[in-house]
Amino acid sequence: MIPHSRSGYLRVCKVKRGSLDMAHTFSLRVYYEDTDFGGIVYYANYLKFIERARSEWVRSLGLDQKTLKSERGVVFAVRHLEADYISPAKFDDILEVVTDVHLSSAARLVLNQEVLRGKDVLFRARVTLIAMRDSGKPTRLPAEIRLRQM
Amino acid sequence: MIPHSRSGYLRVCKVKRGSLDMAHTFSLRVYYEDTDFGGIVYYANYLKFIERARSEWVRSLGLDQKTLKSERGVVFAVRHLEADYISPAKFDDILEVVTDVHLSSAARLVLNQEVLRGKDVLFRARVTLIAMRDSGKPTRLPAEIRLRQM
Amino acid sequence: MIPHSRSGYLRVCKVKRGSLDMAHTFSLRVYYEDTDFGGIVYYANYLKFIERARSEWVRSLGLDQKTLKSERGVVFAVRHLEADYISPAKFDDILEVVTDVHLSSAARLVLNQEVLRGKDVLFRARVTLIAMRDSGKPTRLPAEIRLRQM
Amino acid sequence: MIPHSRSGYLRVCKVKRGSLDMAHTFSLRVYYEDTDFGGIVYYANYLKFIERARSEWVRSLGLDQKTLKSERGVVFAVRHLEADYISPAKFDDILEVVTDVHLSSAARLVLNQEVLRGKDVLFRARVTLIAMRDSGKPTRLPAEIRLRQM
Repeated sequence: MIPHSRSGYLRVCKVKRGSLDMAHTFSLRVYYEDTDFGGIVYYANYLKFIERARSEWVRSLGLDQKTLKSERGVVFAVRHLEADYISPAKFDDILEVVTDVHLSSAARLVLNQEVLRGKDVLFRARVTLIAMRDSGKPTRLPAEIRLRQM
Repeated sequence: MIPHSRSGYLRVCKVKRGSLDMAHTFSLRVYYEDTDFGGIVYYANYLKFIERARSEWVRSLGLDQKTLKSERGVVFAVRHLEADYISPAKFDDILEVVTDVHLSSAARLVLNQEVLRGKDVLFRARVTLIAMRDSGKPTRLPAEIRLRQM
Repeated sequence: MIPHSRSGYLRVCKVKRGSLDMAHTFSLRVYYEDTDFGGIVYYANYLKFIERARSEWVRSLGLDQKTLKSERGVVFAVRHLEADYISPAKFDDILEVVTDVHLSSAARLVLNQEVLRGKDVLFRARVTLIAMRDSGKPTRLPAEIRLRQM
Repeated sequence: MIPHSRSGYLRVCKVKRGSLDMAHTFSLRVYYEDTDFGGIVYYANYLKFIERARSEWVRSLGLDQKTLKSERGVVFAVRHLEADYISPAKFDDILEVVTDVHLSSAARLVLNQEVLRGKDVLFRARVTLIAMRDSGKPTRLPAEIRLRQM
């Protein structure tokens, strides 16, 4: 079930940023709950937006996070995050989250994620994810995600 | 209006509202995360405030919700809620949550909870809680809470 | 712009609950952010779900809450809330929020809102809303909402 | 790497990381609202924790963010963020957020923030903040913060 390769665990596949075949798009609306008294989207909530997009991206690969957790005891965990807040999103905005694989190995997955309003990039993040067992120990990423990169 | 019964399980104890020996007080500050673009605390967040207060109240009774879940498989669940939004809380406010037992039986616990800024009541709720097993089935409330009412 | 009626401010229009012509439906997915360590949707988050639905319902009536705030200085505020938590929603669930007008006057609007998973009602709320000026003072509801009830 | 200048506006002051005179400590408890169905604190919520700490740090410098917004039309905005998720926080944990100035100029403020449970660092972030006018345009940081670094 787990793919084998000559370079094994370290086999890394870099996907060209912006390549259309890899990019996943997810739309959302900004509601009251997302804003703060500064009149704009609260900075932590962009992390919610990109997590929703990752969940839908994972689903689009045929992976069910609920089953992954209940049957294999595996969850995804964010290890590292870099984010640029470029321009604020506002109440009622319709936003798009574009998710791209930057780098993928058996051990970790690095995604580029952008939040756009129309053509304007409002927020940009690079997110490093690992797979983790219930015990908290890192484990290999599910095959569905690694196979995707071959 | 309050059920009467000889049996222990159904024994119901009404605690006079505002009685000092029962009221539990919890303080909190309003942060950015709590507000919305209307400039006030987002309405769902009062439910977070009173839940924090319930958690501290439960702890003050000697109950550890984490152990309760891991060892007995029991969690508290809200069954019913009535809330009045009287006056808005704002950024930087220091608020107090006063928690009072309105009614307690083996099956359910009804609390009165108020959120105050100084002497002004901003929010008032009556919350009906039950204990629930992992399976989702209702179970008796932990003894620590019932004993409290004797 | 504001409708006139013989009974004036007190003119109340009760809409039959469940009538198909009034009900507004809004779909959403449960994400990680919505759940808590009990494994189910955190109780305050249902209030987010029904607020999203109200925002979309208001939009469907031709009202723009952003303009309403910036041009007329008016926001909607929840005054009273009654909620039943019937059965828990879980991660990955697709939910529907059905919004119905229970009662409407110049001063306030009472909505029935239900959260369903398929045919199962998981959560049910009755929400009383008013319109409020920036000053915090109540004002008449926007005509678009009252006209809707004639 | 750090700009040097005789002028006040560009004067940059690097504060040694971990220096006791600069570090600000803020304590918090993990509640239900902070967790997700993975049983740990939801990753976006660490950003709430460190923002609470920043608000208290700013207050400790004698700055009132509410007045800053209402009288000077200035709010703080996060421009860039780098974060390491080292070990998960759990329900009921008592956490400490340690905030340190990494770098400060008239234009921006870079903070190091760590979330600890006892002696264990669970989360570490470097946060770049700017001051922003209501219009969305960047402005100079309030004197209280710049003076602090002299």
